[in-house]
Amino acid sequence: MRAVDLIRRKRDSEALSPDEIRFLIDGYTRGNIPDYQMAAWLMAAWIRGLNPGELAALTEAMLHSGEVLDLSDLPGRKVDKHSTGGVGDKTSLILAPIVAAGGLLVPMISGRGLGHTGGTLDKLESIAGFNVNLSTAQFRNALHACGCALIGQTAEIAPADKKIYALRDVTGTVDSPFLICASIMSKKLAEGIDALVLDVKTGSGAFMKKIEDAEYLAGLMVETGRRMGKKMVALITDMEQPLGRTAGNSMEVAECIEVLGGGGPADLRELSLELAAWMFVLGGKTADLSAGKRLAEEMIVSGRARDRFREIIRQQGGDARVVDEPARLPRAKAKRDVTAANGGYLATVDCERLGIACVVLGGGREKKEDSIDPAVGIEFHRRLGDPIERGAPLATLHYNSDARLEEACALVAASYGIGDKAPASRPLVHKVIGAGE
Amino acid sequence: MRAVDLIRRKRDSEALSPDEIRFLIDGYTRGNIPDYQMAAWLMAAWIRGLNPGELAALTEAMLHSGEVLDLSDLPGRKVDKHSTGGVGDKTSLILAPIVAAGGLLVPMISGRGLGHTGGTLDKLESIAGFNVNLSTAQFRNALHACGCALIGQTAEIAPADKKIYALRDVTGTVDSPFLICASIMSKKLAEGIDALVLDVKTGSGAFMKKIEDAEYLAGLMVETGRRMGKKMVALITDMEQPLGRTAGNSMEVAECIEVLGGGGPADLRELSLELAAWMFVLGGKTADLSAGKRLAEEMIVSGRARDRFREIIRQQGGDARVVDEPARLPRAKAKRDVTAANGGYLATVDCERLGIACVVLGGGREKKEDSIDPAVGIEFHRRLGDPIERGAPLATLHYNSDARLEEACALVAASYGIGDKAPASRPLVHKVIGAGE
Repeated sequence: MRAVDLIRRKRDSEALSPDEIRFLIDGYTRGNIPDYQMAAWLMAAWIRGLNPGELAALTEAMLHSGEVLDLSDLPGRKVDKHSTGGVGDKTSLILAPIVAAGGLLVPMISGRGLGHTGGTLDKLESIAGFNVNLSTAQFRNALHACGCALIGQTAEIAPADKKIYALRDVTGTVDSPFLICASIMSKKLAEGIDALVLDVKTGSGAFMKKIEDAEYLAGLMVETGRRMGKKMVALITDMEQPLGRTAGNSMEVAECIEVLGGGGPADLRELSLELAAWMFVLGGKTADLSAGKRLAEEMIVSGRARDRFREIIRQQGGDARVVDEPARLPRAKAKRDVTAANGGYLATVDCERLGIACVVLGGGREKKEDSIDPAVGIEFHRRLGDPIERGAPLATLHYNSDARLEEACALVAASYGIGDKAPASRPLVHKVIGAGE
Repeated sequence: MRAVDLIRRKRDSEALSPDEIRFLIDGYTRGNIPDYQMAAWLMAAWIRGLNPGELAALTEAMLHSGEVLDLSDLPGRKVDKHSTGGVGDKTSLILAPIVAAGGLLVPMISGRGLGHTGGTLDKLESIAGFNVNLSTAQFRNALHACGCALIGQTAEIAPADKKIYALRDVTGTVDSPFLICASIMSKKLAEGIDALVLDVKTGSGAFMKKIEDAEYLAGLMVETGRRMGKKMVALITDMEQPLGRTAGNSMEVAECIEVLGGGGPADLRELSLELAAWMFVLGGKTADLSAGKRLAEEMIVSGRARDRFREIIRQQGGDARVVDEPARLPRAKAKRDVTAANGGYLATVDCERLGIACVVLGGGREKKEDSIDPAVGIEFHRRLGDPIERGAPLATLHYNSDARLEEACALVAASYGIGDKAPASRPLVHKVIGAGE
């Protein structure tokens, strides 16, 4: 088998066999196939696409390039959730304690902020002492003790994905639904889960701006996961405006604590309950979605989810007092309001731009090496369709340095479009892919 | 400007500006753009194609990556011919002396055998002492003295093409008409010519098996050359069977000497006169094609072309006595006939396979490092449409080693298809692209 022949065949829109795909991925991971050949193949795959068999083979080859956790000795179903990312998207911190308290195991391997979106690991690290870098043994212990553990990708998990992702980044082959699917699924399936709920975001703050693109990706992931024997469901959810009232690491943790305490913004609460309910359904805890929602609500009302969050934080070395005293979380020194230049209704939100404003304040990274200020962020006061009076505050920036404050303010101001009438309201969940199958 | 953005735009079928293409080619030649980025761009260009402006910019950037000969101090028009390659294709050795004797300058930079096809340089080197590696100064001297010089590509000419070609070879991006056009034209335009006649082969022994593909490539090359101010014409010529009666280096030189002496096979003679005539027309020597043919014939009948061939050989250090005593050329020690298994008409020839048989005998290279046996080759006794009696010799293999003789014989035998009736006859020149413009 020669790499050049496999490149040529993909270029000519032919399908490769699982053996051929394994040859490519193994060869590349081991360094027998050079970057330039993989780059040519990735471009051919980007343009020509992959059929379901090829995609499953690619995902499987990437998955088996590294360690695959075997959690079969831990009793109970293992369920996780993955989000494609958005602004203010913080449901993992709410779901993990709810679902663990409800009796399932949640082995969650999460990521850091990417581009304009935040990351679960960055949020958790705004809790003093919280350690996301657990060894496999510590991960197992945490799962056993709390029913949940939240960690980052280790070097042992899907090394092929790490190497391929770095190459995609510099060869213009990032935004392929096929390559995105294989990248996500190879990492998630390495967690040793039985079921996975996908939150595929669509709208101005998502990577998939168009709902058709989000649905297409969701379909690929559901199909790929099922081919590997996992229970799968995907929710296409709205990211036309930030989720909840804040973007920024410690501010988002505080918001999650509110939801776990029975309060918090309605949209964040609603989506969290919906996702938790699907996790309960896929994990076999409840027969249907409404029973799942009732169980999730019960975990909140009873305080058990909040208790579980304290345990998780403690287990991973963090200061669990923040759950009862959120004022212990890092807080920015100064605030600045961005106000409406004219009155009307909030008609459009450039949600990606709001995410970039948060990065500019220091709440995210522009380069991999950048450090994050956990305290900074943006508070959003208005939602799409709200009436706006001229001069009313639209958002409040929380900042520690005014070095790039004006830039961030200008970005936020430019993100809001005010119109004469309220836009048609958008559902929070557009569609569920793979339900009832 | 960032390479990754240019890759992405080509991937999305956008056209790049000349500046952007220059940035890529210059960056790659200098080593600022790595192989993997160029590989991704080449694959995107292979699949998406290039528009005429992009193709001209690519050719120009590759051309100017190295030395461009300025022959303006030498009086007279400079004209060359380029063939896309075939089996038994040896017209350069006939054209160069005819056209130089007719009063034009022929600065010919040629190649070596590639795959199943032979190369002008390998043929010339079967003449004892012939040196194809002239310096630029020697090249000028030879042109001045003989009106013609036949050399190989120097390291100074189009280094971008050398580097890109090596990358295309291992990334499945060789057979793109756009990339082939830029590769050929960047080298040919570095010769400092005013006009170029293209011989674009089509048929079983050509790289372009389908006539539409040959026409498409011819159109690209004519357009690209004209954009750079060169007079251009392209002949689409038949390669459904070998040209002339032999394939193999010294055997082909002997055949060229026959044609220059007024004899030789009809097809080889006809195509050589046609190509020479077009060179005369484009070089302004004759007003039309028939006058061009008469001038070419005159050069043969008068013996002036033959004289000029002797001078060229002498000028480049070769043993010019071969022109009068072809028996001085290397000759293989043994012969083996391949005969017809049944009678009928010669209906099909797998001409590429005949070329491979010649390589197997040692007349070409399977790997770049292989050395060539100039003496070996194949003599072809029958042409398409000829009646064949059972047991009649179809071809004779001339060989020095019987190590792979059986393999070569089997290839030759498998190349001939004998049918009940003669196939429709094919013209030698299918079409002329760019005539009269």
